[in-house]
This record gives sequence, structure tokens and C-alpha cells, in this order.
Amino acid sequence: MNQPASLAPEASRADRRHDAIIQAAVEVFLSNGYRGATTDEVATRASVSKQTLYKQFADKQGLFAEVILNSTIQVGEGLATAAADALRDAKDVRKALREVADVFLRSMLKPEVVRLRRLVIAEADRFPDVGQAWYERGFERTLKAVGEALQGLADRGLLHNIADPTLAAHQFAGLVLYQPMNQLMFAGTSTRPSPARLRKIADAAVDMFLATYG
Amino acid sequence: MNQPASLAPEASRADRRHDAIIQAAVEVFLSNGYRGATTDEVATRASVSKQTLYKQFADKQGLFAEVILNSTIQVGEGLATAAADALRDAKDVRKALREVADVFLRSMLKPEVVRLRRLVIAEADRFPDVGQAWYERGFERTLKAVGEALQGLADRGLLHNIADPTLAAHQFAGLVLYQPMNQLMFAGTSTRPSPARLRKIADAAVDMFLATYG
Repeated sequence: MNQPASLAPEASRADRRHDAIIQAAVEVFLSNGYRGATTDEVATRASVSKQTLYKQFADKQGLFAEVILNSTIQVGEGLATAAADALRDAKDVRKALREVADVFLRSMLKPEVVRLRRLVIAEADRFPDVGQAWYERGFERTLKAVGEALQGLADRGLLHNIADPTLAAHQFAGLVLYQPMNQLMFAGTSTRPSPARLRKIADAAVDMFLATYG
Repeated sequence: MNQPASLAPEASRADRRHDAIIQAAVEVFLSNGYRGATTDEVATRASVSKQTLYKQFADKQGLFAEVILNSTIQVGEGLATAAADALRDAKDVRKALREVADVFLRSMLKPEVVRLRRLVIAEADRFPDVGQAWYERGFERTLKAVGEALQGLADRGLLHNIADPTLAAHQFAGLVLYQPMNQLMFAGTSTRPSPARLRKIADAAVDMFLATYG
């Protein structure tokens, strides 16, 4: 950050407060939905005054946008990094794609990720900017990065005929996630396919992907 | 229905009222969300008294469950029937699958279907039974029927190696719908991939499906 040493403690105290507010807001929004959440409850849970909260976030809507954007970027970056790591130096393309399928399932089927997705979807028509940001900075950017990692495999001669790497990434994600994500989103976070079923879905996704691009 | 003729007019008046209430409830729930909806507004919009409404539905929650179930079954049955029709006597398997892809895109990306999905998802943890019903009687049953239609093609020697027809249907739906449905659900019903992009997605889905099962 290159700040003078004398300013650092103050800055880091503000950062810690910011993080505490974000964390508290995630919990309050997830428990109460957007409409049921209050900035009072967020301030209390974060142990800050309402003045401190309003110094950092203009209002409940601003806090919601920041919380969603923050969580989106974190989930997406984590997934893209893990997928790129699995593919970068891969020798065995089948094994590496299978690992990427596990990364998708592990990252995206976490109850808190599913519940954040629900929150954005529920408010998508009221806050189109928030939903748009989630889609572009989460979904789109993450799968573009996965597509680039797939193109990396093609550059090393391990995949073939990838004319549109982002489309290939969408196809792979759709094969792996479509059924399990629908089940969790609709039937509740307490239900999910069995581990054996998830393995079968992931295996079949890799087989199908390689039948076209292998 | 085999009812005595003297009873039929009364029964059909009750049916018409039932349908009017359901239709009004869909509109009110979609405009206001579950929490913002009132049975008063539904009764007014359906031009029935609140007594009539409560004779048919125990409360707001019962009305919500019935509305969601009703719409789910309609959308799913329409899709499954259209897909089965496209595949039943198909000679050209590629062309028939391409038609099924169009059926998926046409049925599932309608703004009112997307908005109903959002409503169920928003309330999935509060009304797990409703979400579960949507998943089982909508998603699961529809794709099971599509899987049976795919198996029909295999029985006629037009597809091969379909060990798990429902999984094959999930794969096909995931290839066609994953990206567009995510875009509409998050970024709002006013946004969608261009017709050219949807054609490319559908073409690529059929190519990939046939590379494995063709």
C-alpha cells in the first residue's frame, strides 16, 4: 500500500471495521432477506455505530450492492484460480478436467453460495445493477477465465477444435452443475445429489467434453 | 367428468372462479413478491369475495403453493410434450434434437417463467415444500420425460450408449440452458443472449451431444 507508517494503524482499523460491517451484513441479509434487513441490526452485529456504518455505506441499498459484489468476486476468483491451477501444468487432461469438475461442485454448491445466489435472484428486478454485476463480474468473468485455461490446454496440444473457449467453459460448467444447482436452488440447501451421483455426473461431463474437444 | 347435467353449470362456475383466483394470484405474487402480496388484492383482482377465496384456499400460503404447483406443472408438461413430439417419429436425429433445443429455449426463457422461478427460489428456505414440489414435479419429471423420448431414439437405433436416459437429458438441458438461464435469472429479464448467440449455443449443444450418443 506504500502508506507512511504513521497512517497505517488508522487505515487498518478502518479496514477491519469495513470487513466487520460486510460480514455482519452478509449474515443479516441471508437471515432476513433484503426487505427484512435493517442497518441497525447490521451495525449492532458489527459492533460499530450507525454513524460509522453510514460513513462507509450510503444506505441499505449501497451496503447490499457492496456485500453482493464482494462475495461474488471472492467466489468467482477462488473458482477461476483453482481451475487454472488444476489445468496449467496438467499432463493428464482427463484427470485435470475431473479436478476442475470437483472445483465447480465444491465452490458452487456450498450452502452460503447457494443462499447468496438466491438473495441476488430474489431482488434481480428491483436492483438490476446488482444482478448485472453478479452476472458480469461473477459468472461471466469466471467462466471466461476457465475458458482461457482450457485454451491453454489446446495451445499445448491437449485439447482440439476449441473455436470459442468461453462457450466451451459454459458447456463444461453446464454439464457439471445444471442438475445439482437446480436441485439446491429450488429444493433447498438441505438436499443435494449423493456423492456417488455427483461423481457420476462429473465423470460423464468429462467424457462428453473430451468426446468433442479431446 | 360424468356429472349430472343439472350440476354442471354450478361446477363450471366454481372452476372459472378457481382459475380467475389462480390467475390473479400469479399476477399479485409476481408484482409484489410473497411478502408484499395480500389475499385482499388477489380477491379484488379476481372479482370474487374474500369468503369465496377462503372457501377454495386455506390462506395466502396455500394459495402460493397452488399457484406455483399449477404453473410448474403447466410449463413442464408443455415442454415435455413438445420435446416428445419432436423426437417421436424423427428421421433426422440432428434436426430433431435441434428442435428440442429450441423448445427448451422458447419455454424456459419466457419472462414469466423466469419470474416464477425467481419467486420460488426467493422463498425456497421458507417454503421448502413448494420448492421441493417445483423441483420434483417440474424439473425432475420434465427431464425424466425428455430422457424417455431420448431412449425412444436409442430404441430405434438413432442414438447409442445411453446408459442413463435421465442423465443424458440433464446433460442436453445443461448444454442448452446453463448460460442463458443464468444470464436471465441474475441480470434481469430484459437481458438475454442475441438470437445468433442462442443459435450458436443450440448448435454446439447438439454437436456435443451427438459426439457422445450419436
